[in-house]
Amino acid sequence: ILTSVVRANDPLPSWNTGPTKTALINFVKRATTKGNPEYVSPPQRIATFDNDGTLWSEKPVYFQLQFAIDRIKALAAKHPEWKTEQPFKTILEEEQKALTSLSAKDMMILLMTTHAGTTTKEFKKTVRAWLKTARHPRFNRPYTELVFQPMLELLAYLRANGFKTYIVSGGGIEFLRVFAEDVYGIPPEQVIGSSIKTKFEIRKGKPVIVRLSEIDFIDDKAGKPVAINKFIGRRPIAAFGNSDGDLQMLQWTTAGDGIRFGLLVHHTDSKREWAYDRQSHVGRLDVALKEAKQRGWTVVDMKRDWKAIYPFQK
Amino acid sequence: ILTSVVRANDPLPSWNTGPTKTALINFVKRATTKGNPEYVSPPQRIATFDNDGTLWSEKPVYFQLQFAIDRIKALAAKHPEWKTEQPFKTILEEEQKALTSLSAKDMMILLMTTHAGTTTKEFKKTVRAWLKTARHPRFNRPYTELVFQPMLELLAYLRANGFKTYIVSGGGIEFLRVFAEDVYGIPPEQVIGSSIKTKFEIRKGKPVIVRLSEIDFIDDKAGKPVAINKFIGRRPIAAFGNSDGDLQMLQWTTAGDGIRFGLLVHHTDSKREWAYDRQSHVGRLDVALKEAKQRGWTVVDMKRDWKAIYPFQK
Ligand SMILES: [Ca+2]
Ligand SMILES: [Ca+2]
Repeated sequence: ILTSVVRANDPLPSWNTGPTKTALINFVKRATTKGNPEYVSPPQRIATFDNDGTLWSEKPVYFQLQFAIDRIKALAAKHPEWKTEQPFKTILEEEQKALTSLSAKDMMILLMTTHAGTTTKEFKKTVRAWLKTARHPRFNRPYTELVFQPMLELLAYLRANGFKTYIVSGGGIEFLRVFAEDVYGIPPEQVIGSSIKTKFEIRKGKPVIVRLSEIDFIDDKAGKPVAINKFIGRRPIAAFGNSDGDLQMLQWTTAGDGIRFGLLVHHTDSKREWAYDRQSHVGRLDVALKEAKQRGWTVVDMKRDWKAIYPFQK
Repeated sequence: ILTSVVRANDPLPSWNTGPTKTALINFVKRATTKGNPEYVSPPQRIATFDNDGTLWSEKPVYFQLQFAIDRIKALAAKHPEWKTEQPFKTILEEEQKALTSLSAKDMMILLMTTHAGTTTKEFKKTVRAWLKTARHPRFNRPYTELVFQPMLELLAYLRANGFKTYIVSGGGIEFLRVFAEDVYGIPPEQVIGSSIKTKFEIRKGKPVIVRLSEIDFIDDKAGKPVAINKFIGRRPIAAFGNSDGDLQMLQWTTAGDGIRFGLLVHHTDSKREWAYDRQSHVGRLDVALKEAKQRGWTVVDMKRDWKAIYPFQK
């Protein structure tokens, strides 16, 4: 009975006992204990999370890129020219290896082709349908089941302690918003991401917002603090990422006054998930890992620190 | 005693009894009564407010423009070239009449000159200092006292009923955020406005966000629903404005499914505030006023509907 009581009181049951779990709990206790000189008032308790590789997996390819690839295949019959045009030719010929090393430019072409030209309402519907039917090639489960159980617990733990949790992702803002509320408990107004431009217009007497083939903002690297400043207007006191794309967000967050917390998820578990860092094409973690040591950011060793990876393994 | 109990229970004491007050209270009751088919769940209770002319006055010139003018005067000693250059010459010669009819382009030059080139931190400090010392020419009070008491009550009433209140203003997002929390109870992350581009950089080992001389987004007219979609990601169920700049926000808001509410503040009180609509250079209300009739939006007749205008008149 005592054990089960202790377990019931553990806000982070999927985190193994050790320095990482201790650092998280200490931070929250120090920031929320009244009378403690490090106490932070609730409106200032802002925590920002990267998504790909931090809240869910990002291998073998970014899940949103897989969505774009599946859209290309679905739309191919209407576009015979894609049989000879790159990057469409590669996609349609299913050269899986080529997919994992698409250039940033090719990725952008795929995203623009498949993400623009519809109204926001139609786009949401398409994403929702894909999330229901698509299956991850390794785990044969919906992509939204490939979220990290320890991070779900951390989000809930922070919110229970008065934190407002945000996503600040290089992924598409409107893609993320389709599932962030159900899967992470994060409402659309707390999801920040990359965006394409949109346009308001009246169609058949009804107002719509149309998605245009033009980049609005890339929410990555130095773009992350810029977006945080624009959308939130306050500096977070805690930031969570997994790659060099999160370096500036962690710099910006932890350089503020008072108590601060920076954390990087290091993918070290080749058996249960994937192991990668400096050499990886997707989710490269190099400069930020070095800086973590200098600045005292917490680094999650996924293999050591996480009791379970996905909710279905609990 | 009965009267005072009734008054204490009145959530909108500065609103005179009549159709406008009734429409507001009926909307909130219908949207929040469980079991009512029009019931709206709390996360969907989003209400957006224009600022200039809706939450505070905007005469004789937009208050933010007055801030820019005062900055030009403060910086003039360092810019002898302004004595002959327009629009600076006009500003420095205090041609008050010319100020009320500055072109959009001249306003933009003034805003860019005075709002860019500093870090976000320095800019906030400058705005805060100005708000403390500047006085409105007619009322000889700080500009933040020129907010509308009935609208403060409405904001509080909506929040007490589970609404999330947002500002969606053509004014500068970082200007508004300096006072919105104290004055309106609206935190920075619920303030949306026009913006200039910013850049993240490391200065002397410390990360800063620098304000650039380049427009990022104009949050006016068709830009308002675009910004609402980007920042909030949900369609509001209620929107409040005062000019043609709010037309598209009201169209977008009220075209959604279920119960909706659109409201325009009509400035009809030349004695206590100002009276203007179709002919006004600032805050023109023409097309939206016509459309209000067709679409059943509520129109506040300031003179008739408001018992007090400003908090200091209570
Ligand atoms: Ca990532
Ligand atoms: Ca206005």
